[in-house]
Amino acid sequence: MKSLIVLKVGGNVIDQPLVLEAVLRDFAARRSYRLLVHGGGKIAGKMMKDLGIEPKMVDGRRITDRQTLDIVTMVYAGLLNKNIVAALQSHTCNAIGLTGADANIIPAKKRPVKDVDYGFVGDVEPGCIQADRLTGLLTADLVPVIAPLTHDGAGMLLNTNADTIASSVAIALAKSFCVELVYCFEKEGVLRNPEDDSSVIDFLDEALYSRYKDEGVITAGMIPKLDNAFAALRAGVDQIRICSPNGIQQGGTKIRKK
Amino acid sequence: MKSLIVLKVGGNVIDQPLVLEAVLRDFAARRSYRLLVHGGGKIAGKMMKDLGIEPKMVDGRRITDRQTLDIVTMVYAGLLNKNIVAALQSHTCNAIGLTGADANIIPAKKRPVKDVDYGFVGDVEPGCIQADRLTGLLTADLVPVIAPLTHDGAGMLLNTNADTIASSVAIALAKSFCVELVYCFEKEGVLRNPEDDSSVIDFLDEALYSRYKDEGVITAGMIPKLDNAFAALRAGVDQIRICSPNGIQQGGTKIRKK
Repeated sequence: MKSLIVLKVGGNVIDQPLVLEAVLRDFAARRSYRLLVHGGGKIAGKMMKDLGIEPKMVDGRRITDRQTLDIVTMVYAGLLNKNIVAALQSHTCNAIGLTGADANIIPAKKRPVKDVDYGFVGDVEPGCIQADRLTGLLTADLVPVIAPLTHDGAGMLLNTNADTIASSVAIALAKSFCVELVYCFEKEGVLRNPEDDSSVIDFLDEALYSRYKDEGVITAGMIPKLDNAFAALRAGVDQIRICSPNGIQQGGTKIRKK
Repeated sequence: MKSLIVLKVGGNVIDQPLVLEAVLRDFAARRSYRLLVHGGGKIAGKMMKDLGIEPKMVDGRRITDRQTLDIVTMVYAGLLNKNIVAALQSHTCNAIGLTGADANIIPAKKRPVKDVDYGFVGDVEPGCIQADRLTGLLTADLVPVIAPLTHDGAGMLLNTNADTIASSVAIALAKSFCVELVYCFEKEGVLRNPEDDSSVIDFLDEALYSRYKDEGVITAGMIPKLDNAFAALRAGVDQIRICSPNGIQQGGTKIRKK
């Protein structure tokens, strides 16, 4: 099977133009099939502040009301996505920017209202990803660049977690490609000591992960991300790495089933 | 040759959500190959005002400085483009939103500085359009929806006139399709009397156009648009219509070489 890198670039990286530029240059230079998913960063929040729109919070959780949806659509699908595409094009990487609405690649469901109404937030299931459409773009030598928005199929865009998009897309494409999912964020990897960037855990499998959790080496913050990673591995993704912009090629924490 | 409709939807239509929705529903229902190009409307200007950004003008001409470019990227490529895509998807029209940077479909040149520096404005030549890439999307049953932005290939997005994108794309695709280019704007068509919406000229060819210009029936405002239309016909586009949202299926002014 052909190799595919699914690179998730986090908000902290997006917020540092020079770091982002270096990540995109590296990514453009890779030779395998590639797909990029980007987070949002702080620009949407700043924009809302500048426009005098109060972020809507319920019980400490951020709510995507209509105004917020419009702002994140502008910032994520417009400003960020198209500047990433233009930057990749300058490195002769034939990028095509997409939301989940484009070519219907990621149909989603508006999150049901239970205790909290999150507003225009979409939940994605890997089984709903239009993998054939993404495969068609990839094999036509295009490099999809996906903004963290999906749609409900009834005309509404939905704000969607970029980590979830990345893992769902990686899982959906694992049927046709040998997929490495790379989460690029502000830390060097999964750390033994969150305060010490040199304490990277080089390798994790399910047994080690259990042990480190039991021993309290891996704690709160990383657990949802790692649970999610192991779920993706069980669903067919070949390898996952969690790394900083410096470690995209090889570094960070490698995660495998065993 | 297979038929292709290239529909340009003007800013005045974009600014009226219910009218736009009706246009998109009609467009989605058409059975031929389809491609949509949309203008910008007034939202970007309103946004700049809300953010306290002064529109930059030189000699009465609007200049695209960096701040303006960022705003139009957000509004045109984000808010407008993605909501149009989501609306078309709701009518089971498999739209894919693009700027000229995406898949490098419209490489452009930053307008050279002569008397006026227009800033980040791109000029397009029909010969530069990546027609094969657009044909690939069309024949994969996708419906391209193009925002009025291009790129310089060196990482910079460029603000670009939507009419020019529409005619350039129509010309570039005329090699592979029998192309009808439809300009949908606020008037019923080319009018004998600009004040009277019932005075639509049903048909124009080059001879009639000359005569009407000589007789003063067609005046200033429409001349650049019509010159541009006849240039597109000479370059291979089969038919052009200029119509209102009510006339998209059949109405307005039909323009042919003869």
